[in-house]
Amino acid sequence: MDSEERLVVFQPSGRRGRFAIGTPLLDAARALGVYIESVCGGRAMCARCQIEVTEGQFDKHGITSRADHLSPPGDSERRWRVPPGRRMSCQARIMGDLVVDVPSEFAVNRQVVRKRAETRRIALDTATKLVRVSLPQAEMEHPIGDADRLIEAIEAQGTYRGLTLDTALLTTVQPIVQSGEITAAIHQDTGPPCIIALWPGVHTSIFGVAFDIGSTTIAGHLVDLTTGRAVASAGTANPQIRFGEDLMSRVSYVMMNPDGLGSLTEAVRGAIATLISRLAGQVGIAASDILEAVFVGNPVMHHLFLGIDPSPLGQAPFALAVSGALRLQARDLDLPLHPAARVYLPPCIAGHVGADAAAVALAEGPQGHDEVTLVIDVGTNAEILLGNRARVLAASSPTGPAFEGAQISAGQRAAPGAIERVRIDPVTFEPRIKVLGVDPWSDEAGFAEATLATGITGICGSGIIEAVAELFLAGVVAADGTINPVASDRVRPQGRTFDYVLWRGEIEIAVTQTDIRAIQLAKGALYAGARLLMDHLGVDHVERIKLAGAFGSYIEPKYAMVLGMIPDCPLDRVTSIGNAAGTGARMALLSRTHRAEIEALVRRVEKIETALEPRFQEHFVSAMAMPNAIEPFPHLALAVTLPAAAPARERRTNRRRG
Amino acid sequence: MDSEERLVVFQPSGRRGRFAIGTPLLDAARALGVYIESVCGGRAMCARCQIEVTEGQFDKHGITSRADHLSPPGDSERRWRVPPGRRMSCQARIMGDLVVDVPSEFAVNRQVVRKRAETRRIALDTATKLVRVSLPQAEMEHPIGDADRLIEAIEAQGTYRGLTLDTALLTTVQPIVQSGEITAAIHQDTGPPCIIALWPGVHTSIFGVAFDIGSTTIAGHLVDLTTGRAVASAGTANPQIRFGEDLMSRVSYVMMNPDGLGSLTEAVRGAIATLISRLAGQVGIAASDILEAVFVGNPVMHHLFLGIDPSPLGQAPFALAVSGALRLQARDLDLPLHPAARVYLPPCIAGHVGADAAAVALAEGPQGHDEVTLVIDVGTNAEILLGNRARVLAASSPTGPAFEGAQISAGQRAAPGAIERVRIDPVTFEPRIKVLGVDPWSDEAGFAEATLATGITGICGSGIIEAVAELFLAGVVAADGTINPVASDRVRPQGRTFDYVLWRGEIEIAVTQTDIRAIQLAKGALYAGARLLMDHLGVDHVERIKLAGAFGSYIEPKYAMVLGMIPDCPLDRVTSIGNAAGTGARMALLSRTHRAEIEALVRRVEKIETALEPRFQEHFVSAMAMPNAIEPFPHLALAVTLPAAAPARERRTNRRRG
Repeated sequence: MDSEERLVVFQPSGRRGRFAIGTPLLDAARALGVYIESVCGGRAMCARCQIEVTEGQFDKHGITSRADHLSPPGDSERRWRVPPGRRMSCQARIMGDLVVDVPSEFAVNRQVVRKRAETRRIALDTATKLVRVSLPQAEMEHPIGDADRLIEAIEAQGTYRGLTLDTALLTTVQPIVQSGEITAAIHQDTGPPCIIALWPGVHTSIFGVAFDIGSTTIAGHLVDLTTGRAVASAGTANPQIRFGEDLMSRVSYVMMNPDGLGSLTEAVRGAIATLISRLAGQVGIAASDILEAVFVGNPVMHHLFLGIDPSPLGQAPFALAVSGALRLQARDLDLPLHPAARVYLPPCIAGHVGADAAAVALAEGPQGHDEVTLVIDVGTNAEILLGNRARVLAASSPTGPAFEGAQISAGQRAAPGAIERVRIDPVTFEPRIKVLGVDPWSDEAGFAEATLATGITGICGSGIIEAVAELFLAGVVAADGTINPVASDRVRPQGRTFDYVLWRGEIEIAVTQTDIRAIQLAKGALYAGARLLMDHLGVDHVERIKLAGAFGSYIEPKYAMVLGMIPDCPLDRVTSIGNAAGTGARMALLSRTHRAEIEALVRRVEKIETALEPRFQEHFVSAMAMPNAIEPFPHLALAVTLPAAAPARERRTNRRRG
Repeated sequence: MDSEERLVVFQPSGRRGRFAIGTPLLDAARALGVYIESVCGGRAMCARCQIEVTEGQFDKHGITSRADHLSPPGDSERRWRVPPGRRMSCQARIMGDLVVDVPSEFAVNRQVVRKRAETRRIALDTATKLVRVSLPQAEMEHPIGDADRLIEAIEAQGTYRGLTLDTALLTTVQPIVQSGEITAAIHQDTGPPCIIALWPGVHTSIFGVAFDIGSTTIAGHLVDLTTGRAVASAGTANPQIRFGEDLMSRVSYVMMNPDGLGSLTEAVRGAIATLISRLAGQVGIAASDILEAVFVGNPVMHHLFLGIDPSPLGQAPFALAVSGALRLQARDLDLPLHPAARVYLPPCIAGHVGADAAAVALAEGPQGHDEVTLVIDVGTNAEILLGNRARVLAASSPTGPAFEGAQISAGQRAAPGAIERVRIDPVTFEPRIKVLGVDPWSDEAGFAEATLATGITGICGSGIIEAVAELFLAGVVAADGTINPVASDRVRPQGRTFDYVLWRGEIEIAVTQTDIRAIQLAKGALYAGARLLMDHLGVDHVERIKLAGAFGSYIEPKYAMVLGMIPDCPLDRVTSIGNAAGTGARMALLSRTHRAEIEALVRRVEKIETALEPRFQEHFVSAMAMPNAIEPFPHLALAVTLPAAAPARERRTNRRRG
């Protein structure tokens, strides 16, 4: 035994290993394949990687507590107010033998995957089609190969010319052709047609998959290529999360680890492989019955999926290795589909605006409207499209992950137990909350019983947005974001600022001044991006807003507008368009016309790089206030009563008086 | 220890294993990867799989001889006259612990590979070409991917349209493009153009390989695609030989072993991989610098190389899985070339007439001549082409491997120590011989010393042909093939027939009556095939004969004609064309024009299936005599003095009198 190594056991998985003294616990967890959520990639910037520590020797009398088995907590852990008994695993270093509990709310696989297939009718023009053909037996007098006879017979039907047979079928063609009655799947996209699958006799159904590779979740749909119907859907957390949750953390991981790229690519492809087998299992087909696949994702996901180093995307000029649409072989990507399955990736729009945004544009883009339409897809970055039939502009805005509940002191992902909706009484300042997975509101009958199963563990993205907006509407938070010391025991001083205690239970859940600053930064960035595009388009208001993705589905447009995240717009023209990236991916899967459309669209989209625009910074600063200091919100004013301007100082003065 | 298993050690390799009692030694050798030559695939039909047996226990006192450690010799071993101390490893079954010596003349890797690159100037029209391009740095204002910028810049040069980038380059494109000065290799054959390799800066040389996959030998040439020059050549024995030497033995092996196909495919690809690395090593390049490859082979080799089950080629209607030309990706065949390297396989002509024959036709086919031209390529089968500019006919004739020294009692492959040339004095009946690897003839000074190194171990294909032809010219062998009991102690009775003792040394080398019958069968089949094509073409003589391959290079045309293997023809119009299949493969490697030519040629070739033609059998029977009973040989008669007709009985009578 090397005396400089110490034994660490992670619970509940029981995985264990010996590590050099001084190794951060997060590194030890990664080395053992123990998943601990880490938004920032181990940079002490998210406090998501918390674990519970039981220190001590391993003896039959139990654990002897010894404080020196971990390095002492440092400044960052104090700053993040890590509760007693917990440590940030990126900061705590191994000093002695340890048993570590990974709390279930920080294990990534508990998350709810909120991406579903939208029900949209897509006109079929699939690249892969079935044809049937009968062939006589081989004859010695005409010694032409079985594959060649098959090609001749299909070409004789008149639809295809210059047909070839995929290499993967060479080894299986003969018994199938000799059966006499053959069904062939022929793929023809922009190149010459190719036979990619063969069955003896009659075969009637072929399948494709459309995947949206998100930074945090990967969602796939299995589609019947003959009917266009989505027959199964499945989602999972992106296992790349263990290398860092946000995009830049993963890019850093690749830059700092020699085998980082391989690990990240393997992780995402592995998750996709698992989903493919789950999708196929749901409808009782084999993964090898799947003949086509479409993948969309942001540029970093797109590159990592393809095995391309994303490092250049981490710094100016944010150069993509490849931006155009890609037509590939599934086998070249090690995907467990039919050995001759084909893969299509729509084009990326720009270094920060990926194939996922292109898919959103295909499905729901401004080019389909006469009115000036703003389309927003908020993930870790926000992708923003603005325009109408005449012009389409696109940009990406660095909102960060606050809208997803990260970088929020009590923030968590959307999972059972998370506070997802909030109302604040403007008179008593008392809150009502709704918890994900629990039907009643907190002031309704049965709430306490219902939360026994889930607990109340934190606040998710839609919850923190509603909390901040309601606090603002109630006058607890001022237009500049400051928490006012209103006359309520829910507001309590915390150093030089105030917290608002949203929930007192097993865990206390508070909205801190820091949380509000994080939301202000995020919403300021989002608004500034939209406003920048409005400047470029030369408009000062938008006529329609479409909110894509989980964010768009779970947030109430009113609160987005109260915060000034989005420009003013009639509230009934602000709609949620659901998983538009997934819809766009299915459209590309089912129609070559849509492939041509998305490629032409991306070519004509005007790309705006926020980092190059001084106005973006100006808008960003002005947009930090609530709603913001850039535009009046006439339509919002019709829907809610906004607090009088600058009440903050007055009330704080009141408190001092009281 | 399982008492039903026995230990077997093979020398000189030292490989050892335990095998069930009753296991044939050949199977044990195969299981251990010990190569023992086997022409017939373990069917007791070739006697090539001989080993020397040292039976006994393994103790420190040495080997105790015990006769019951192997099954006793059976009829087939007696028929083949296996010498004392030797056994046919396909017949001898393990009964006890054994040490087995594999005599070096039966180890396959000692063989001389006689295929070399012919020096022929081929007009260049390569599918892969180099282009150079300069690119500015990426700009944030124009967020187009590096690959896309590269494609745009190359297309702007005007030569290519619809250019794509091979998937394999996606992961490496970015740093190369960002270097600013790029050399790209672009492949364009019949489909759209594709970038298949990239280098930063100036790159001036790219390479291709052309392989001729023979049943017994595999030969490859490394070619500079920018100059057309063959810069390296290498050959090796086809390791499939250990699964059976002739084609049908290998087909049987596939049919009888569940993993037979995989083993055979792996064996041939493994040998090719080794040759590729050897070729690259000869000129100091990396295998990944090789961007194109062409492979030719007979239909069984072609299918096994591609991983296609060759079983249907073993029985009527001899249906090929695929006959047309194939354009593939090297990575789909697990070939260790550049990851985006392209592979071309010329078409097969028919179930018995492969891409190798097509390559011969491309290089040296009758279509290039006004005169009626016969092209013969003798391997284990003979491929025969006949015609002129107007028409080309093709057939395959089942000569068997006798011309390669197999199925001959003292036969061996062309290797040092083999008798390769023979002269018989028509008066004394004494022979003169020449041994491969030894300069002087046996009656010249220094012969004895020179053979000390090689020994005189057997007789190879050209040797047995010369021996039979010379014996015929000397009157020792009658026109019907019978060995006459001439007045010479070299002719000695052997049961009811006679042997001719060609060499008395450490090993006695005799030409037996059975050997002559084997040669008669082979040459009868070859002639009958040629004659059948002459019938179809409607000619009764040919004006030019071209002999391809090792057979054609090492045999004297005169002796081929003396035996009646080939039709009568002016001897100065009978030429050796060397490794024409290899030349054809190089032509296809270097020129898309030649690819189009070979594909068009194969389409118009009239395929004659000898198995369907009653006349083939008739010709075969008549062609067994020497020269043969079908045609007079006026041109031959000008070159040699043929014996008077039917001298056999007369001389035999003489002997009885004497």
